Amino acid sequence: MSQPRNAFYAQSGGVTAVINATAAGVIETAAKHRRHIGRLYAGRDGIVGALTEDLIDLSAESRATLRGLRYTPAGAFGSARFKLKGLDQNRAEYERLIEVFRAHDIGYFFYNGGNDSMDTALKVSQLGAELGYPVTCVGIPKTVDNDLPLTDCCPGFGSVAKYVAVSTREAALDVASMARTSTKVFVLEVMGRHAGWIAAAGGLAGEKAGDPPQVILFPEITFDEPAFLFKVKQSVENNGYCVIVVSEGVKGPDGKFLAEAGTRDAFGHAQLGGVGPVIANLVKEKLGYKYHWAVADYLQRAARHIASKTDVEQAWAVGKAAVEYAVRGMNAVMPAIVRTSSRPYRWKIEPAALTDVANVEKKVPRNYITADGFGITKAARTYLQPLILGEDYPPYENGLPAYVRIRGKAVKKRLKTQFKL
Amino acid sequence: MSQPRNAFYAQSGGVTAVINATAAGVIETAAKHRRHIGRLYAGRDGIVGALTEDLIDLSAESRATLRGLRYTPAGAFGSARFKLKGLDQNRAEYERLIEVFRAHDIGYFFYNGGNDSMDTALKVSQLGAELGYPVTCVGIPKTVDNDLPLTDCCPGFGSVAKYVAVSTREAALDVASMARTSTKVFVLEVMGRHAGWIAAAGGLAGEKAGDPPQVILFPEITFDEPAFLFKVKQSVENNGYCVIVVSEGVKGPDGKFLAEAGTRDAFGHAQLGGVGPVIANLVKEKLGYKYHWAVADYLQRAARHIASKTDVEQAWAVGKAAVEYAVRGMNAVMPAIVRTSSRPYRWKIEPAALTDVANVEKKVPRNYITADGFGITKAARTYLQPLILGEDYPPYENGLPAYVRIRGKAVKKRLKTQFKL
Repeated sequence: MSQPRNAFYAQSGGVTAVINATAAGVIETAAKHRRHIGRLYAGRDGIVGALTEDLIDLSAESRATLRGLRYTPAGAFGSARFKLKGLDQNRAEYERLIEVFRAHDIGYFFYNGGNDSMDTALKVSQLGAELGYPVTCVGIPKTVDNDLPLTDCCPGFGSVAKYVAVSTREAALDVASMARTSTKVFVLEVMGRHAGWIAAAGGLAGEKAGDPPQVILFPEITFDEPAFLFKVKQSVENNGYCVIVVSEGVKGPDGKFLAEAGTRDAFGHAQLGGVGPVIANLVKEKLGYKYHWAVADYLQRAARHIASKTDVEQAWAVGKAAVEYAVRGMNAVMPAIVRTSSRPYRWKIEPAALTDVANVEKKVPRNYITADGFGITKAARTYLQPLILGEDYPPYENGLPAYVRIRGKAVKKRLKTQFKL
Repeated sequence: MSQPRNAFYAQSGGVTAVINATAAGVIETAAKHRRHIGRLYAGRDGIVGALTEDLIDLSAESRATLRGLRYTPAGAFGSARFKLKGLDQNRAEYERLIEVFRAHDIGYFFYNGGNDSMDTALKVSQLGAELGYPVTCVGIPKTVDNDLPLTDCCPGFGSVAKYVAVSTREAALDVASMARTSTKVFVLEVMGRHAGWIAAAGGLAGEKAGDPPQVILFPEITFDEPAFLFKVKQSVENNGYCVIVVSEGVKGPDGKFLAEAGTRDAFGHAQLGGVGPVIANLVKEKLGYKYHWAVADYLQRAARHIASKTDVEQAWAVGKAAVEYAVRGMNAVMPAIVRTSSRPYRWKIEPAALTDVANVEKKVPRNYITADGFGITKAARTYLQPLILGEDYPPYENGLPAYVRIRGKAVKKRLKTQFKL
């Protein structure tokens, strides 16, 4: 058989509580396939590391660090918000990637990200073939937004879902305690600019009708102010309080994000990422209720301390499968999670073609949202519930999670050329 | 010996992750002193339940529910933001309390709260004696603000401190991953309107110089915009990113809350509770860095899922001690936590006189804050570290904490009179 070739792994886009568990799956599995995979490099700051020939030598990391990746949140090697343009628009970037891969004898490219990254992995596989330097490209799913098609869910989502469901349940108990004489409305803003999966997960906090959250605002449903205010008023009158989970991506009838329409800073600039306060102010303005609001932001996607065990296992499994596909010569594929049963939750990993995955966005289907647009249906629960199952606590030292940091030793450069980002 | 008399327990002010653990300590200990304590009632919505003669019959709760209080956050019986005025201003409220206590043969009053509540407990003990209806009044410390004097810390604080330290560490890993091509500054707003204990706890996320959070903004330190911006710039230049923990109570040189000065809604109204976005916008405006911000709000004080084991144990212990003091006839006291050693952390419970506790506020001492005003010192670490030690996870069902809810059976009213709040 042929000589082993080296492999390159990069993290892409917004990080998650479990993307490093995927890295661990890749690293541990690659180590078992030394006949195919020689050295495994990681890109420092994702694909930027490839473009700038800044590769991290994983063989310089201790076993303890590599083991710790499984329970360390965020991107241990650095990630990047750097979308490669179309081949016709910026062919130079792709050619540079191939140049760096060629210089380091990289025959396997593992790209761990969302929609854009799947598209990039596909393009690299196409251009490599065209340039006479074939690279086996495997996309590995990761996104808290849970919007990739053909996979039951996206690693990273289950842990955000658990964080949001747990936090909503806890904050709801708080506001219920205070409502008689103080706060009556609590608003939690969560991520999800285009798809409402994370907001939907907030619905798991309640179990029966009337349970908090009484209102969920999805990007999939155009904001209807009178219907919303009626629902909030009704909840306060019936329950004494109202808990609202709002997705950052909620839009008004004009098609604009509510966050943009609302809050402005002292200089009059629109302030993004603040739909929570906008909703809270609206309630105060129109209904007069005392409110509190929280914006979870990075806290939600970095919350490894309350990760879903199911999510951690799936994150690791897609990393493992990616390597197994690659060494079998499967190109331009993505390991997808396939659900075979909801109760009990059973799943397996199967390959999906990147051509079918790239640039397709999976939104929350209408039948997962109640008729009034403010809650989740039984179908949504059946889908979501298994994804938050199980706890997988990190080890603690001095009262804090003992997360690891990589040494990050750089691989010696072989190219004389620089690349300007 | 004399006949047993009934007891009344009420939760007061903002709730915490462990105030119900204190309730459990009271309930379980009272059950061991049946010769002194007959029935134990709880106020529905705190002191409001006493004023309106709305008492909860704890004997109607199941053993499972009472056991579950130890791991259920927020106020299981309801709390109230209802400060009794001074005796001279509104004697009627105190007289009403005594009237209700007399009607239900309540000889013991346990008031679980912060500064205001300690003052109320003291006044009730004074007025009861004056009106010929002596009540043994014991204040039980509770406040996430950690601002009560004479106790090493306040139950509720250790768990918020742990939540904020853990969340800061996690979010810092996130921003560090993204900083090369995206977010460079992350701002976390935490509670503490008058004292910066919670913000200080964020400092535990880092262990050595340069570790995040690189900037902490305390209410004790007047906001110095140029010094702040310089520090942020320096951190981004040295580390690639900057993590900021800001207390909601930070004030500018004009003595006003920064939160008030900054953000306004679409109608031009000042928007409170938003110093996080104010700080983030300032950084963007003056330094041009891309930012993210989070406001933890109720999430931080309700986060029983990541409670400090030390805090849970102390919360239970002050409940137990309160009952033991009461049956020994100790009046107008508060069980205080006394630290006997920091490493290892050792503590005991001793009584403090309510006259010494009421209306005294303990702020973060200057020697706990670094010379530049943006960090915590070794002395602060020595104080804070033990308070977040240990994990005490609640049980989970279907991926969510199995928190309990009380049945809340009302005690039959004995008075014909109503009380208008």
